[in-house]
Amino acid sequence: MSRFLSQRFSKLKEYIPGEQPRGMSYVKLNTNESPYPPSPEVIAAMNMGEIEKLRLYPDPICRALKETIAANYGVNPQNVIIGNGSDEILSFIFMAFCDKTTGVCYPDISYGFYPVYAQVYGLDSREIPLNDDFTLSADDYLNAGRTIVIANPNAPTGLSLRLSEIERIVKANPHSVVAIDEAYVDFGGESAVQLIKKYDNLIVIQTFSKSRSLAGARLGYGIASAPLIADMEKLRNSINPYNINLLTQLAGEAAIISQSYYDKNCAKIVETRKYTEKKLDELGFNCLDSHANFLFASSHKLTGEQVYSGLKSRGVLVRYFPKTRIKDFVRISIGTKEQMDIMLNALKEMLFQ
Amino acid sequence: MSRFLSQRFSKLKEYIPGEQPRGMSYVKLNTNESPYPPSPEVIAAMNMGEIEKLRLYPDPICRALKETIAANYGVNPQNVIIGNGSDEILSFIFMAFCDKTTGVCYPDISYGFYPVYAQVYGLDSREIPLNDDFTLSADDYLNAGRTIVIANPNAPTGLSLRLSEIERIVKANPHSVVAIDEAYVDFGGESAVQLIKKYDNLIVIQTFSKSRSLAGARLGYGIASAPLIADMEKLRNSINPYNINLLTQLAGEAAIISQSYYDKNCAKIVETRKYTEKKLDELGFNCLDSHANFLFASSHKLTGEQVYSGLKSRGVLVRYFPKTRIKDFVRISIGTKEQMDIMLNALKEMLFQ
Repeated sequence: MSRFLSQRFSKLKEYIPGEQPRGMSYVKLNTNESPYPPSPEVIAAMNMGEIEKLRLYPDPICRALKETIAANYGVNPQNVIIGNGSDEILSFIFMAFCDKTTGVCYPDISYGFYPVYAQVYGLDSREIPLNDDFTLSADDYLNAGRTIVIANPNAPTGLSLRLSEIERIVKANPHSVVAIDEAYVDFGGESAVQLIKKYDNLIVIQTFSKSRSLAGARLGYGIASAPLIADMEKLRNSINPYNINLLTQLAGEAAIISQSYYDKNCAKIVETRKYTEKKLDELGFNCLDSHANFLFASSHKLTGEQVYSGLKSRGVLVRYFPKTRIKDFVRISIGTKEQMDIMLNALKEMLFQ
Repeated sequence: MSRFLSQRFSKLKEYIPGEQPRGMSYVKLNTNESPYPPSPEVIAAMNMGEIEKLRLYPDPICRALKETIAANYGVNPQNVIIGNGSDEILSFIFMAFCDKTTGVCYPDISYGFYPVYAQVYGLDSREIPLNDDFTLSADDYLNAGRTIVIANPNAPTGLSLRLSEIERIVKANPHSVVAIDEAYVDFGGESAVQLIKKYDNLIVIQTFSKSRSLAGARLGYGIASAPLIADMEKLRNSINPYNINLLTQLAGEAAIISQSYYDKNCAKIVETRKYTEKKLDELGFNCLDSHANFLFASSHKLTGEQVYSGLKSRGVLVRYFPKTRIKDFVRISIGTKEQMDIMLNALKEMLFQ
């Protein structure tokens, strides 16, 4: 820390992203990326002619991309904001709709970035414990009196809430913003996007990083009532109006248009998830009921850290979270069937040799 | 404004980017982009193989790009932070090194984003008037007692400060951060980068958007002492750790390596600037002594707004700032000689027909 950093950040604990290996080649199942490449349409969209246009600023309004996303959901472009990854949208939400008088709440076991944003913006934050089986009770979020952030499906558990439960929470908090982070919705969740037509306090966040194979392009979006979007746009324009580069805007449009390609990939990933869950079960692991592109699995014989280290030494990266309630678990991204077999064989070696 | 927006943003006036034309094709001289494409090395770096890798997250540390930039300046990678455009670096500076007790100051006529950041972060900001001829007196910034932000060369004036004057300001403010925004330095300014080895309170900001023909890729960087960089990295990791997409990282590396290509472009732009200045002078315009890729020009016959509107109706976009001290000026980006001739002919038409 330099002698110049504002005192309010002196205790800030930054977010730790999943490790990005250097040098050694791993089977990388630690950051929930897609094992499949972007669609041929995306690859074609980022052609040489467009690369030459990089000398010009991109459209700061992302007009074409907004129109494409809006059409896909049957909403208006005024209901859409585009972010440099969905993390940026989350940052706008914590910044715009919380302050010294309006706090924030989220589950105790969820995306690790929520508490970091709460710290960055100096918020009164409440972590609401999930049930013992890691399910979320909508009852815990009625009349919260503060901004609510829920990942659905949740990470790292993979468990998902029914749309009716989400609606119950949104309806019971008419004076608070409710943000539903749907990063993993395409692998088996129920999206709340259509509820934005009915509730002006709902924001749904989605990403191109998971089902749409564009983690490297950095693209996410929020869908909400026009006034909520206008507020977030005001912040975006006041912090970084040219936040989305030219090629990423084109990739995003092409990805939305090639939805059927991604639907097939999602179906393959769900199939591989079921296969992997069955095999893990046979190895004595307990997997939570995942609706995402990962499994959250615990063994009776090994701690999460032991599974993580044992797999890493065998060339497989998974994610382990050093947090009391989930220390026996690892989060395993769903790759190709071949990658999962390598991971399963490494586990067998660890358990039975 | 929604009923949910935090009260602290209720009066926030967002930054207005230069207009991005739709439909009609303009000679675009309004946002200081390069008229030349990215280098062949940059175009080659963003090839199809890399596009397929977009399914994976980019390196959040931008290790290779940092090493390339550091080597270019003879500093260490720990002295470099990478931003999604240099605006993001500016945002980190206003956020990290200012607060309720530490205010900020900058010239009254400078980059229009500085007052916006001051508002976003709720800072006590002081606009220090430039001299009547728009030059900056270093004397006005000695013992400022607050964070100092100076664009050098300045925008939209194009005037530049000598390195010895910058050093005088940095030296006289050992307890304040001094940020020098060198977006336009490659067109004739003197860079302060080497001073970071001597002063721990200096941050130099540069961009790939102007001389390096990559406005569309969104890439900027800051160079400073390791503790200042570590503070900004902490904020970056707490807001958006994957802020730079994969292809932009590759483009940035290739651009630094192909410096000689960009040096030639800069020389051409400086030559075209001199040509344009001479022609504008013949038309009765007064141009400030630009060290940037634009001219700041005023006419005795027309207001800035009239020049802007007249040119726009003739298919040429330039920038006009509705601010008292500079209302007689327009800022004209330097394009190709052919583009400048179109602009000059349009001016002739407006003045003499």
